[in-house]
Amino acid sequence: MSQELTGVAASPGVASAEVLVLEGEVEYEERTIEDTAGEKKRLKDAIAKSKKQLEKIKAKVKREIGDQKAQIFAAHLKAVEDPELIKAVETKIDQEQINAEAGVDQAIEEFASRLEALDNEYMQERAGDFRDVGSRILKNLLGLNTVSLAELDKEVILVARDLAPSDTAQIDKELVQGFATAVGSRTSHTAIMARSMEIPAVVGATGILDDIETGDQMIVDGLDGTVIVNPSDAELAEYEEKAEEYAQRKKRLAELKELPAETTDGHQVELVANIGTPADIPGAQDNGAEGIGLYRSEFLYMDRDSLPTEEEQFEAYKEVAEKIDGPIVIRTMDIGGDKELPYLDMPEEMNPFLGYRAIRMCLDKPEIFKVQLRAILRASAYGQVKIMYPMISAVEQLREANQILAEVKEELREENIAFDEDLEVGMMIEVPAAAMVADILAKEADFFSIGTNDLIQYTTATDRMNEQIADLYQPFHPALLRMIKRVVDAAHEEGKWAGMCGEMAGDKRLAPFLLGVGLDEFSMSAVSIPEVKDQIRNMSLEEAEELAEEALSCETAQEVREVLSN
Amino acid sequence: MSQELTGVAASPGVASAEVLVLEGEVEYEERTIEDTAGEKKRLKDAIAKSKKQLEKIKAKVKREIGDQKAQIFAAHLKAVEDPELIKAVETKIDQEQINAEAGVDQAIEEFASRLEALDNEYMQERAGDFRDVGSRILKNLLGLNTVSLAELDKEVILVARDLAPSDTAQIDKELVQGFATAVGSRTSHTAIMARSMEIPAVVGATGILDDIETGDQMIVDGLDGTVIVNPSDAELAEYEEKAEEYAQRKKRLAELKELPAETTDGHQVELVANIGTPADIPGAQDNGAEGIGLYRSEFLYMDRDSLPTEEEQFEAYKEVAEKIDGPIVIRTMDIGGDKELPYLDMPEEMNPFLGYRAIRMCLDKPEIFKVQLRAILRASAYGQVKIMYPMISAVEQLREANQILAEVKEELREENIAFDEDLEVGMMIEVPAAAMVADILAKEADFFSIGTNDLIQYTTATDRMNEQIADLYQPFHPALLRMIKRVVDAAHEEGKWAGMCGEMAGDKRLAPFLLGVGLDEFSMSAVSIPEVKDQIRNMSLEEAEELAEEALSCETAQEVREVLSN
Repeated sequence: MSQELTGVAASPGVASAEVLVLEGEVEYEERTIEDTAGEKKRLKDAIAKSKKQLEKIKAKVKREIGDQKAQIFAAHLKAVEDPELIKAVETKIDQEQINAEAGVDQAIEEFASRLEALDNEYMQERAGDFRDVGSRILKNLLGLNTVSLAELDKEVILVARDLAPSDTAQIDKELVQGFATAVGSRTSHTAIMARSMEIPAVVGATGILDDIETGDQMIVDGLDGTVIVNPSDAELAEYEEKAEEYAQRKKRLAELKELPAETTDGHQVELVANIGTPADIPGAQDNGAEGIGLYRSEFLYMDRDSLPTEEEQFEAYKEVAEKIDGPIVIRTMDIGGDKELPYLDMPEEMNPFLGYRAIRMCLDKPEIFKVQLRAILRASAYGQVKIMYPMISAVEQLREANQILAEVKEELREENIAFDEDLEVGMMIEVPAAAMVADILAKEADFFSIGTNDLIQYTTATDRMNEQIADLYQPFHPALLRMIKRVVDAAHEEGKWAGMCGEMAGDKRLAPFLLGVGLDEFSMSAVSIPEVKDQIRNMSLEEAEELAEEALSCETAQEVREVLSN
Repeated sequence: MSQELTGVAASPGVASAEVLVLEGEVEYEERTIEDTAGEKKRLKDAIAKSKKQLEKIKAKVKREIGDQKAQIFAAHLKAVEDPELIKAVETKIDQEQINAEAGVDQAIEEFASRLEALDNEYMQERAGDFRDVGSRILKNLLGLNTVSLAELDKEVILVARDLAPSDTAQIDKELVQGFATAVGSRTSHTAIMARSMEIPAVVGATGILDDIETGDQMIVDGLDGTVIVNPSDAELAEYEEKAEEYAQRKKRLAELKELPAETTDGHQVELVANIGTPADIPGAQDNGAEGIGLYRSEFLYMDRDSLPTEEEQFEAYKEVAEKIDGPIVIRTMDIGGDKELPYLDMPEEMNPFLGYRAIRMCLDKPEIFKVQLRAILRASAYGQVKIMYPMISAVEQLREANQILAEVKEELREENIAFDEDLEVGMMIEVPAAAMVADILAKEADFFSIGTNDLIQYTTATDRMNEQIADLYQPFHPALLRMIKRVVDAAHEEGKWAGMCGEMAGDKRLAPFLLGVGLDEFSMSAVSIPEVKDQIRNMSLEEAEELAEEALSCETAQEVREVLSN
């Protein structure tokens, strides 16, 4: 008989396939060992094997997904070779005469719990690395040939308590048809990854691990958050129909690809994509992005031991400039906050989101900033490149950044290096102070792009990562709506354009409002483009303006939500 | 010959007295000990003695300064009795046969550096506690009778590398005439303490420890940041004159005490004090405060093992209500952010300033909130009590808080307990979202009080404790000025009053602007009241309005500063 479970609809779509349960704990017996030297040899071999596996996975992930994800395995490799860890296990084997399995398990437990006790996010991640690696060494000691996600050979639905970043990083989306996990929420790592990989997923399906085994059949309905184990034929038929409908809808949306984002009364806006690396370009193109509204340049600075050279940066920017037939807004580096660079020796901060980051660091370290500006300017000879500064909070900063840019341009002219003399230079509006003085800034910036993720965070004084106050991180807050209108009006007053590159831009519920206040450019995850385009193409500007006005007159986020859902 | 040094003018005033140098390091010799039992007895005695000293200081500080400061010594007492620490020293004595001095020094070093390595502010403070306590035990082992600031018997000027909170907490301001330290800035702990105790101070006077000894004569000029060691008669005479002028100015300001804060053209505003505990009442009264614009209720929750009872809170609020002849705005608890309560098991947060704090916690834990509201309501029968909610970011929160308040009122009515039925209920405006929707909030709040410390922090996305970006924490930012005007206008539009209780309210440079935009109430550290009153009494409302308008038309903080300094 089939069994139905309910969880959180974390990523849309419907899938049906065989289950693969990802095991959590590994079992072993503790034994007394006389041949401690032999046991240490076993340990050494298991570590060598683990290292080899990790290197293989790292290379695969780097090749197929990108440097940033591969970094997880770089951390695991560090942990697996940690001399202190190895020493600790060897000491246990020698002194307590226990088998390597027990030694590894105990030493890992000690290492990880010591790190976890520190109540520090970074340390807790390190603890997670040790546990992940410990489990791998254990499996290798036990000769268990556990499933390596990187080596799947058939279609499956993954079932687990939760998926670790090291799991999701290995997923081949041709084979993994869906996820179902026992814990998690819409904003947990697993959910975010599922959406970005476009794999249907249900998370937080309590009890899912109770009566399920690898090989069972399962339907994952990521549209309404349902999981069906060993479905009946009738259920299978019903879900096939649903899957078909969803596919039809996706197909219909895909047909919008070449059509403009134009309202029924002919008002056109620009729908562009946020990208993190050149690897995201095909996704942007497949979804019909008219350009890149936010090219995050951070990836160039991460997962390495030193700053990227001008040449490395130039190549990355040029690649995008050449491949994209449309505008490319390159955001200068937004390091700091939750993104750290080990080689820059950045300060430990009590409130990193309110700290030394982005343009603040660039203006403080012009020698680093100039290298990036040179690289971007050089790339501007190859496409419609624009520069965008993040985290500007006062016009003084904009002037200072532009002054540095002018110096770099002058240097290039002297060196006879080509760049686009008419390149637009804009800024993000993500600090409330900038929204308050948008009229002053609009005189000196060529465009604005509203960064709602941070703007909501600062405006409502709510850390967007803090689950305990998640209800206060509120895109529908009337204060936000007013700020957005204020910013768009200020830009238009000076004849400049205003875009948005935060999550809000890709939220189809908000599209009518943004359209109504006159937003010119919507930049979002590429996958959201078709839905937002569909929304825009099915309403008139006049309707949008009326809705926006109504939303602006609301007193609460709930009222706004109701107005916009009508 | 005299010697002159320059530092940072940290606290105004001029003082001349004998120097007392506070030593840093204690010296001892490491010895091999055979009688380890005897050595452990010495250790035990020194710990007992240290404990007694700490208890004495804690009691004195609690009596004379308040619970919050006494907490430092509670932490020291915990460290001095730490069983792990004692065990570690004893093990060293037993195993290495070293003397107790060496054992203590090494064990403390190990404990402290382990904590410091954690790169976590809280842990680093604990490391400081261990070092402080270690130095005390060492001195007691060595029989050194180091100066206890709590037992001074003559006037001195303290000279040190820096003063620890445990030093400043013990200071008798009748005897300590001034400070001069080698390190520090205007916002360092020593500088803030000096200002709050009204003791002249110069900090960051590099080299001050080089050629100075206890018993030297010294002039500390906290007005221009100069220190003169062993001054000549001429220098002494000159500084006496300067001290006299300063005293005259203070006297003239003191004469304003009974006069209203009224402009030359008859516009009157209210100057009230921020207080932390009932112990601050005399200071408020001495400086002519017309009431209390911010009674921080947090002290009731801190330095204890459990929540304060309704009765304890009622007594504290009633005391202020009875002693103050004027309005008393009691802010409901603002715990969280940088203020933690160990007994509440609060979450560790990545960005505590953007976290679970103040009204967010109260609405989440109504059982705690209701106790406080009952206590405040009961106290309202004894004076002009008003309630103020902190950290409101949306009208929904205000409604929810008022709903809980209504329930508590109903309970009191049913129990026939008296309270002021007309008690005003207002809110702080310290979150940008609240400033943006002040018009909506003004319909449902009886008054606003702008909390500039947090408002600046969120508006500019700058942690006010983060020294690396201190220049971005900018009260003169045009965005701030506009927000303030927006809030005051919104209040007046609904016939409500608007006050301010952040540092900006006590900054005499900003008084003309605040007056000009129509601020009704200025709440500040009591010591700032005379200066601000002097400023207000020497200008007309018309002049203030013109200045405010000019300031509002500025593009940069620098321009605002220039306009306001004319």
